[in-house]
Amino acid sequence: MKNGTAHLFIPGPTNIPDAVRRAMNVPMQDMRAPDFPELVLPLFRDLKRIFKTETGSVFIFPGSGTGAWEAAISNTLNRGDRVLMSRFGQFSHLWVDMAERLGLEVDCIDVEWGEGVPLDAYRQRLGDDKGSKIKAVFATHNETATGVTSDVAGVRAALDETAHDALLFVDGVSSIGSIDFRMDEWGVDLAITGSQKGLMLPAGLGILAVSAKGLEAHKQSRMERCYFSFEDMQASSKTGFFPYTPPTQLLLGLRASLDLIFAEGLEQIFARHHRLAEGVRRGVHAWGLKLCANEEKWWSDTVSAIVVSEDVDARQVIANGYSRYRTSFGAGLSKVAGRVFRIGHLGDLNEVMCLAALASAEMSLRDAGARIEAGSGVAAAQEWYRAEIGRTLQPRHERAA
Amino acid sequence: MKNGTAHLFIPGPTNIPDAVRRAMNVPMQDMRAPDFPELVLPLFRDLKRIFKTETGSVFIFPGSGTGAWEAAISNTLNRGDRVLMSRFGQFSHLWVDMAERLGLEVDCIDVEWGEGVPLDAYRQRLGDDKGSKIKAVFATHNETATGVTSDVAGVRAALDETAHDALLFVDGVSSIGSIDFRMDEWGVDLAITGSQKGLMLPAGLGILAVSAKGLEAHKQSRMERCYFSFEDMQASSKTGFFPYTPPTQLLLGLRASLDLIFAEGLEQIFARHHRLAEGVRRGVHAWGLKLCANEEKWWSDTVSAIVVSEDVDARQVIANGYSRYRTSFGAGLSKVAGRVFRIGHLGDLNEVMCLAALASAEMSLRDAGARIEAGSGVAAAQEWYRAEIGRTLQPRHERAA
Amino acid sequence: MKNGTAHLFIPGPTNIPDAVRRAMNVPMQDMRAPDFPELVLPLFRDLKRIFKTETGSVFIFPGSGTGAWEAAISNTLNRGDRVLMSRFGQFSHLWVDMAERLGLEVDCIDVEWGEGVPLDAYRQRLGDDKGSKIKAVFATHNETATGVTSDVAGVRAALDETAHDALLFVDGVSSIGSIDFRMDEWGVDLAITGSQKGLMLPAGLGILAVSAKGLEAHKQSRMERCYFSFEDMQASSKTGFFPYTPPTQLLLGLRASLDLIFAEGLEQIFARHHRLAEGVRRGVHAWGLKLCANEEKWWSDTVSAIVVSEDVDARQVIANGYSRYRTSFGAGLSKVAGRVFRIGHLGDLNEVMCLAALASAEMSLRDAGARIEAGSGVAAAQEWYRAEIGRTLQPRHERAA
Amino acid sequence: MKNGTAHLFIPGPTNIPDAVRRAMNVPMQDMRAPDFPELVLPLFRDLKRIFKTETGSVFIFPGSGTGAWEAAISNTLNRGDRVLMSRFGQFSHLWVDMAERLGLEVDCIDVEWGEGVPLDAYRQRLGDDKGSKIKAVFATHNETATGVTSDVAGVRAALDETAHDALLFVDGVSSIGSIDFRMDEWGVDLAITGSQKGLMLPAGLGILAVSAKGLEAHKQSRMERCYFSFEDMQASSKTGFFPYTPPTQLLLGLRASLDLIFAEGLEQIFARHHRLAEGVRRGVHAWGLKLCANEEKWWSDTVSAIVVSEDVDARQVIANGYSRYRTSFGAGLSKVAGRVFRIGHLGDLNEVMCLAALASAEMSLRDAGARIEAGSGVAAAQEWYRAEIGRTLQPRHERAA
Repeated sequence: MKNGTAHLFIPGPTNIPDAVRRAMNVPMQDMRAPDFPELVLPLFRDLKRIFKTETGSVFIFPGSGTGAWEAAISNTLNRGDRVLMSRFGQFSHLWVDMAERLGLEVDCIDVEWGEGVPLDAYRQRLGDDKGSKIKAVFATHNETATGVTSDVAGVRAALDETAHDALLFVDGVSSIGSIDFRMDEWGVDLAITGSQKGLMLPAGLGILAVSAKGLEAHKQSRMERCYFSFEDMQASSKTGFFPYTPPTQLLLGLRASLDLIFAEGLEQIFARHHRLAEGVRRGVHAWGLKLCANEEKWWSDTVSAIVVSEDVDARQVIANGYSRYRTSFGAGLSKVAGRVFRIGHLGDLNEVMCLAALASAEMSLRDAGARIEAGSGVAAAQEWYRAEIGRTLQPRHERAA
Repeated sequence: MKNGTAHLFIPGPTNIPDAVRRAMNVPMQDMRAPDFPELVLPLFRDLKRIFKTETGSVFIFPGSGTGAWEAAISNTLNRGDRVLMSRFGQFSHLWVDMAERLGLEVDCIDVEWGEGVPLDAYRQRLGDDKGSKIKAVFATHNETATGVTSDVAGVRAALDETAHDALLFVDGVSSIGSIDFRMDEWGVDLAITGSQKGLMLPAGLGILAVSAKGLEAHKQSRMERCYFSFEDMQASSKTGFFPYTPPTQLLLGLRASLDLIFAEGLEQIFARHHRLAEGVRRGVHAWGLKLCANEEKWWSDTVSAIVVSEDVDARQVIANGYSRYRTSFGAGLSKVAGRVFRIGHLGDLNEVMCLAALASAEMSLRDAGARIEAGSGVAAAQEWYRAEIGRTLQPRHERAA
Repeated sequence: MKNGTAHLFIPGPTNIPDAVRRAMNVPMQDMRAPDFPELVLPLFRDLKRIFKTETGSVFIFPGSGTGAWEAAISNTLNRGDRVLMSRFGQFSHLWVDMAERLGLEVDCIDVEWGEGVPLDAYRQRLGDDKGSKIKAVFATHNETATGVTSDVAGVRAALDETAHDALLFVDGVSSIGSIDFRMDEWGVDLAITGSQKGLMLPAGLGILAVSAKGLEAHKQSRMERCYFSFEDMQASSKTGFFPYTPPTQLLLGLRASLDLIFAEGLEQIFARHHRLAEGVRRGVHAWGLKLCANEEKWWSDTVSAIVVSEDVDARQVIANGYSRYRTSFGAGLSKVAGRVFRIGHLGDLNEVMCLAALASAEMSLRDAGARIEAGSGVAAAQEWYRAEIGRTLQPRHERAA
Repeated sequence: MKNGTAHLFIPGPTNIPDAVRRAMNVPMQDMRAPDFPELVLPLFRDLKRIFKTETGSVFIFPGSGTGAWEAAISNTLNRGDRVLMSRFGQFSHLWVDMAERLGLEVDCIDVEWGEGVPLDAYRQRLGDDKGSKIKAVFATHNETATGVTSDVAGVRAALDETAHDALLFVDGVSSIGSIDFRMDEWGVDLAITGSQKGLMLPAGLGILAVSAKGLEAHKQSRMERCYFSFEDMQASSKTGFFPYTPPTQLLLGLRASLDLIFAEGLEQIFARHHRLAEGVRRGVHAWGLKLCANEEKWWSDTVSAIVVSEDVDARQVIANGYSRYRTSFGAGLSKVAGRVFRIGHLGDLNEVMCLAALASAEMSLRDAGARIEAGSGVAAAQEWYRAEIGRTLQPRHERAA
């Protein structure tokens, strides 16, 4: 069962483009060489385009998205600070856990898994916070565990409407680069991502963008930190170097990845992710199954969490995919373990790969006892893809007409 | 349309396993070094297992399968020699053409495209050839253009029944390593293959195995030759070197490929190819289409040539696959251009990849106007794969029962 | 000037073996797959052999050696804890800086750059510390900035002689895997290394080994931490998984690297590093120059810091090497900037590479005005290497005689 | 002895640039795809610049330089044709051997090994050939076995002076791309090279350029040929395809290699090869040894064949280099076996690599009993390289002054 391509449909690490893979296959190089900044400085510049920020500053930490979460908190807040968070999946749960462990006083709103950031509740808490005790508001843009995308612009609106000046932290690990994210327009202060999702790299980099307001808050922050400290990193990265040995291999991969992203175009990438995701969703609905994201407005274009019927164990579906069909699906985590399996559809992906995912899922489901019709999900997705691709191929004047 | 994996379903070059790809990614090395034979000699030994020969000798020429065809002819025959050939597809056609251009007198039997080597006709010609004018009999084991596998054992039987001592040449380019081939048992004298099919390497090596009888004939051969000469190659390769600079990269890839082949097991590989091919065929039949191979006995386990309905242009199917769905199918060549498209299913392949091929073909066909049902081929193949894989996973004692 | 190999003689990242490079050139994989522990668990087991510990526990953090420093401190100590450190180069300096920033009360002994850990002073401070206020003693095993190796066994002896039960922290970033290091024998509690030195990988992993006593101390540690917390990592890694997405690519590289290390043999690797280093030192002395390490007992087998004569600017030597001869040397850092340049000689290296380093350094020195004789350093090293290699090639019985 | 870089100083295959290596590390692709010509057609166009021909046609055969030799002969001559050749090393010897085996009547002038094409003798034979019986004149531009470069323009002059219209064949396997070669200016009709020398690729492609006169001769050629036939190749390559499966991997590598070549500039590459070669020669002369090329006019800028003193066995030098110092030198072939070892200095090479070659050769020589001074060759080369690089770095106005 080890023949041929392994079919990777987890929501990260994502499939890496071959050009990126090649770019990382290099001998080691001198990270103190005078021309090293020629590699590094444009990375910072170009990552700003990914975050859609002109005024923010970008930080690249060797680590992971979790490390970038920690960098964001420990550089801008202080122990005992009150923060507003919401929890509706494993990753928003872990972020709350980190905030507590780092000494924040978390005002956490628990929301049903399958929904996202509760805008009304946020607005109310912010409105009630007359003394501005809440120092920061946290939003998980895309909850990877449930396939739920939240409305970050809505969080900004809640802040604005209540004239609250808390910092806005956004976890964009599984959205940035794949789903539209607008740091400046939405007034995000700390935006966090990692290398192994929309940036189509291996894990190993935690990346964050910090607004001018975030950097201002940094000056008041007294948390102990060293590895993840902004000050060391800023001093170095301004000159194109790093305070400690950087993973040069990943920086070269990032260069290749950014080149691919800009060649395709960010908006085109978002459109592609939507098209691919919608095909998967149509497949799921053709099976008669439901998404964990319980309203269309929450549907994520990077990952679909699929609820199996009661008589099926989602763990078995995943096990079948892996052991019988060389396919990796994402598991249902924590509360939804056994009830949900996930299809990641972000990064370097195309229509036929999504059809392969659906075909493999159909077999894995049926092997696990699911009463779904063979080929039904594939057929529904095919029709969507054919129509969409046909539409884009239509001569321009016809479309105009 | 350049995102994600390119789906390669041509009958060679085939998808290369990642381990093979990695093995070829090397700095250059000294092909005259004293330890170079430690790489080379085991390759010759192990290739004999691929050809299933103990008494034959293996030759590796930098070139292609076409080069190995020429090496076989120019080293064992003489200009003006009469040979018996048959023609039922583009590749058997090209082999006849080469034989004529190299100065052989070809007794060519034309057979309908969709059938294979005509055993009865061969038996008759051989029986009629009282003066043993026929010096060699040629058989294309697997006609890549039409997806037809011929009965090489049957050709041997025809020779034996007529007590004819002509040499037996077999083109196994798209069979050896994927479909059972038994050089010694079938009394094949010149067996030809290339690197880019069942051996799962890039193109660049023409490989042939020669029986003791073939080497004996070589002594009588007076054709001019130099690059492809057996004598130079034999003298060198016996010592583990080459008469001219070999493509070391491919030799290292071959090492990795042979290791994978023996780890899986040749018989298991043949079974896998049959299982994968049968899934594709069930898909084709579920569409209501026919194979070019017009009887089950001719069905090839490495490539399926699919006949489209009269109102569809197969060229359009292939063009759709390539431009819309990032999928490469094989074209209908020469006589069957426009009527046939081909799905190659050999090499490093698994079930979900074949389902992807079918899903992509369904869309490409429907876009080209074919009246086939979306998802129908995928569903038929899924059911076959599920049953087959389920069968292999069944506990051993149950199966025994 | 971009032709041919870049000659990398910095003390890390080191030259990567091709087998390691190939092992990292992979598609992404599912880090939650049931067989993922088959990769991970043996890594932990085998790293223990590198640290020479049977009772310790190994942690692998995505990050760098600096991150592992932080993990060691923040998991076993508490803010306000008194620790004994010494400072004699840029890296011991940075470690002191980190300790202070993380809230420790550092009792720092400054030593002349060119010497190592001051055993007598340590013994005295420990002896004086009747109330056991010193919670930990820190030793930089190999100070990369000055090419000084310290006597860790001596630090242990100082602790034992004074019957002090402080934890022993050792920075082995540029020693472990290249210079003998014996965690259990020396009673080291926190041993730190990174991927990009003796492990011959790109930067990206901070690795540490923790003694049972260190884990005991962990239970009393109340520093805030999350990313680098032992508890999360231990819970996961016991099962062969990670608490957040690991850099799988580097784990695969580590597998390949460990395989190479054990194939060569740790003791053989130490001997090779000594042989190579001694050749470089003989070259330096043939030039009439001195090492920064001011006594033979401090000489490092992984990096030589070379003091240029007063009329030469070491920065110019390094600039010449880089811009004229495609060679990277290490810079003199901080106090010794301009006075010192460094030749890193650790990792995947051989004699002729060291001769290339010396040849390039000779040109770079002479271009910078140094009055050294062309070829003199190369000649001295050649004679040493010839003799050493000749000795190892001598028939065993001759050597015995 | 397997640590670190293997030092490859054979005259091909040469060290491959990392960018080329990366470019070849690819999944397989569809060599019948409609956009495949976008890769292929520019290769033909750009190779013409390498040959310095505007009117010639380029052919790329999967094979080797030897294959291209055969293609050149079998496509433009006829059995029994008289040709003028000269023999002064192993490769010119092998070419004569091929010509004879392919049925040509060879008028061969034997020249002392260490000299090159005998212009006077050529002029005389051509002048004497009143009936124009000589159909072709052959010249080995660079005899790889002896490190001798011949004067191709001189051969053209001999033809012109005698008003002889024989075709001019040139073996440029180890010169083209590294030493100036001017196909059109010198009136070369058949120019032959391979991939593994100046083109810095693995072996696997035989490349030749054919003048209009050569193509005219082709029409009269009646030699049997198929694999290497111009007609099939021309028909295909005009459209950007190949008559049989091409080694796509190498074509992608060729693209990368040509890009590097044009980025550096052909004339700059020739100058670099001269500079590097001259350093090696100065090293050899500093040792008190002589080149096989017995006059300066014959000295090759791509390979130096070095004559050892009588009491030394050159085979031992090579064995020492390989087994003790991880270095590959070229052997003395045939007549000069044991008397000569070779340092290849072509392709992707820089000064410090050449110094490494000399340093390794010094040790290998001394280990073999040669009475040369350690470091002497390195020192001589260093001084040359320093001066040459210094010269190129000198401000433009100083140089002008």
